[in-house]
Amino acid sequence: MDKRFEVDGLALHTDLYQINMAETYWKDGIHGKKAVFELYFRKIPFGNGYAIFAGLERIIDYLKNFKFSASDIDYLRDELGYGEEFLAYLKEMTFTGTVKAMREGEMVFGNEPILRVEAPLAEAQIIETALLNIVNYQTLIATKASRIKQVVGEETAMEFGSRRAHELDAAIWGTRAAYIGGFDSTSNVRAGKLFGIPVSGTHAHSLVQTYRDEYTAFHKYAERHKDCVFLVDTYDTLKSGVPTAIKVAQELGDRINFVGIRLDSGDLAYLSKEARKMLDAAGFHHTKIIASNDLDEYTIMSLKTEGAKIDGWGIGTKLITAFDQAALGAVYKLVSIENEEGIMEDTIKISGNPEKVTTPGLKRLYRIINKQNGKSEGDYLAMEYENPAEEERLKMFHPVHTFISKFVTNFEVRELHEYIFKEGQLVYVQPDIKEIQAFAKENLQLLWEENKRSLNPEEYPVDLSQACWDNKMKNIAEVRKKVKMTGYQ
Amino acid sequence: MDKRFEVDGLALHTDLYQINMAETYWKDGIHGKKAVFELYFRKIPFGNGYAIFAGLERIIDYLKNFKFSASDIDYLRDELGYGEEFLAYLKEMTFTGTVKAMREGEMVFGNEPILRVEAPLAEAQIIETALLNIVNYQTLIATKASRIKQVVGEETAMEFGSRRAHELDAAIWGTRAAYIGGFDSTSNVRAGKLFGIPVSGTHAHSLVQTYRDEYTAFHKYAERHKDCVFLVDTYDTLKSGVPTAIKVAQELGDRINFVGIRLDSGDLAYLSKEARKMLDAAGFHHTKIIASNDLDEYTIMSLKTEGAKIDGWGIGTKLITAFDQAALGAVYKLVSIENEEGIMEDTIKISGNPEKVTTPGLKRLYRIINKQNGKSEGDYLAMEYENPAEEERLKMFHPVHTFISKFVTNFEVRELHEYIFKEGQLVYVQPDIKEIQAFAKENLQLLWEENKRSLNPEEYPVDLSQACWDNKMKNIAEVRKKVKMTGYQ
Repeated sequence: MDKRFEVDGLALHTDLYQINMAETYWKDGIHGKKAVFELYFRKIPFGNGYAIFAGLERIIDYLKNFKFSASDIDYLRDELGYGEEFLAYLKEMTFTGTVKAMREGEMVFGNEPILRVEAPLAEAQIIETALLNIVNYQTLIATKASRIKQVVGEETAMEFGSRRAHELDAAIWGTRAAYIGGFDSTSNVRAGKLFGIPVSGTHAHSLVQTYRDEYTAFHKYAERHKDCVFLVDTYDTLKSGVPTAIKVAQELGDRINFVGIRLDSGDLAYLSKEARKMLDAAGFHHTKIIASNDLDEYTIMSLKTEGAKIDGWGIGTKLITAFDQAALGAVYKLVSIENEEGIMEDTIKISGNPEKVTTPGLKRLYRIINKQNGKSEGDYLAMEYENPAEEERLKMFHPVHTFISKFVTNFEVRELHEYIFKEGQLVYVQPDIKEIQAFAKENLQLLWEENKRSLNPEEYPVDLSQACWDNKMKNIAEVRKKVKMTGYQ
Repeated sequence: MDKRFEVDGLALHTDLYQINMAETYWKDGIHGKKAVFELYFRKIPFGNGYAIFAGLERIIDYLKNFKFSASDIDYLRDELGYGEEFLAYLKEMTFTGTVKAMREGEMVFGNEPILRVEAPLAEAQIIETALLNIVNYQTLIATKASRIKQVVGEETAMEFGSRRAHELDAAIWGTRAAYIGGFDSTSNVRAGKLFGIPVSGTHAHSLVQTYRDEYTAFHKYAERHKDCVFLVDTYDTLKSGVPTAIKVAQELGDRINFVGIRLDSGDLAYLSKEARKMLDAAGFHHTKIIASNDLDEYTIMSLKTEGAKIDGWGIGTKLITAFDQAALGAVYKLVSIENEEGIMEDTIKISGNPEKVTTPGLKRLYRIINKQNGKSEGDYLAMEYENPAEEERLKMFHPVHTFISKFVTNFEVRELHEYIFKEGQLVYVQPDIKEIQAFAKENLQLLWEENKRSLNPEEYPVDLSQACWDNKMKNIAEVRKKVKMTGYQ
């Protein structure tokens, strides 16, 4: 590999302003103050009713190995002009903080912390960019995948998008996120190896082009592969591809399993129905029809409505790039910081956009589950010192339209965060990827069907406790007073 | 790093079907046949009039180091069940082919090869996925960046999108592509180090929150940083942020350069005009106003139309994710393959969608430049044996509406492909990133303004030579005949 990449670590994978702020804190001697940041997004993507958290695996790897390399330090000195003393400090920096986070596969909603970092101020600041970069993408894709899988149902959903992913990392981490969201397999062999995801794939048009006709190509393919899925649209699906696949399967008999055919262009509804008839007429009732070609939850819904005879779905571009909403806007906000007396104090960011005002203070996040029906009543963000499990009757009210409220009784409380790192030590054991997928699937049963539908789902409540709300109002009032007191304007 | 990632190479970064096809070819003894693939997209993204090629740097690195690791081979054997003999062949595989490609920064249009691979069939097949994964993303972003830069003009365009990029690779390779497309800097320090791109950034809201008020925060920041850009919207832009920035700058006088303020929320047009007045009234005529917050070419155009007083643009999400069209659909198609007698034969893929029919044969790509006005007349795809430079009068005709044609005289011909690898040896020296950016900028002068406008640009011609067209028709006729002759239906 190019020498530059050999010595490349990830500590420098941050925005310049993080380093500038770290330097300011260091110079001022407050770099070691304990700071608490929360990572959350405001709005669920795709108009979906829920999101699925993914990204923890890579975050663990990133934080565990956080270290500026010698060449990073050289670059910061020689090219950016940072001073030796500050660089000596950076050189020794490792991640020594505490991280609480949701488990991967957890359902997550707007305005609730996915992850909380409690660390020396400078460290907590420098890791912001990478944490957001990882969580934003992987959570976006896990959510999109889950959304598509809802429509696919029990049929097979295969991730085929590597060639359209945003560079190499997105291909492998995106397909891992898709698996968490409920996909059955990936076409990317490297992702299969790294993450233990089942891989799938057969052959491309170029195989047929190489042998110049489908008959030879399918025969050659079948010589090496017992389970055969033939791609039938290189020249003409119904006139050439499907009949040739059938002919080859008839000739080879028991020597192959004629698992399926794949349609990759044309009118998938029409072609699948005609192909089904041809396969059935030849006695291949168990041979599946796989479709691919720019599919997403909308085209799949439409094809199903039309009665397309499709048994498996290969989904690429629209999933791996989250094409209809290619970014999740998670942010990372300071909610509390140690003051000069060593006491944690709340901080807030005000904004002209009310939804951008942060919720200050040390908090915990709970899911309130109705014991009677097993469904969730909503998520509940409370101050660190509160314990909703001890309440008999919980008041939950809408965080914007506060007059909308309900009282919940006979409930179970599940805290949504686990300790991942404690003072720099990894204390969490990641489950196997199959367990993560199962956890994500099982979780969805807490929701009503109304929360899960693809279009206009019912909003799931994420409420603040009364104490949390009161604390936010107090902080807003204090900032307002201060801004006024400066006497400008 | 996690042990899995330490031993991770990129040879397995491919779709499973590529390995399956390679195995079929190997078993059949034709894996070493020379095959020629072309990589191209059909449609320019964003409705733009041109695209900018990026991705060659990483492709070179990928091909140079192409090698299956021991753990790759183990995975293919133990998990996927490939046989020892085939694995022994894969284990020894390196890239031994010839690659011709455009230079990075080259203007590229639909249906013309960006890159041509001439290699042993199995090698050429296995590298497809990674090549597309790299070119599709980087070219998409270079194009988006160029499009945004056209609107920004001579003002500063800064890439701020790392936190929203699709995982880590996209953040760094995307910002490199943005630089090629004309951006001035990146916020990503790692990209700065790896690629030599200028980095920029100042501080975030959390700095103000940490010090609890802007006055202290700006002072503390200024203690360490001579050049100051203050972020002014943590509490209230006009009541608190801007006046505090001015006050701090007045107090510090010559001790800092009050380079700018940054607006990151609210109505950027209104706030920038008011802030400009306040800065001017205080005598800070040279202090710049930087804006950020979900900007793209459309919001920038609109802000400029409104007379916003903005001197620098920080652009994140919409650029780094190519938000309005998050995928480029480049494909990789077999155009020629060695037959049993060792002679190269054309291949074609037919499709129900006419625009998906490939153009067969060994070809070269030229840009035809009018000597009189220095503008390009179009690109010209000719058979390998043709030499348009020798023609006095060149017939160029539309590849779909063939009755639209023109004759060009007094022209200069530029071949658009360079040799990158010759039989596995790297023969190309990548220019410095600044040269690549300059080349991209200079190239745009070949276009008329009509080709470059943001909305409904005039289509740039990519034409086939008569011989190339005739050859395509001949191949289509041959396939049609063969499909008919199979006698199905």
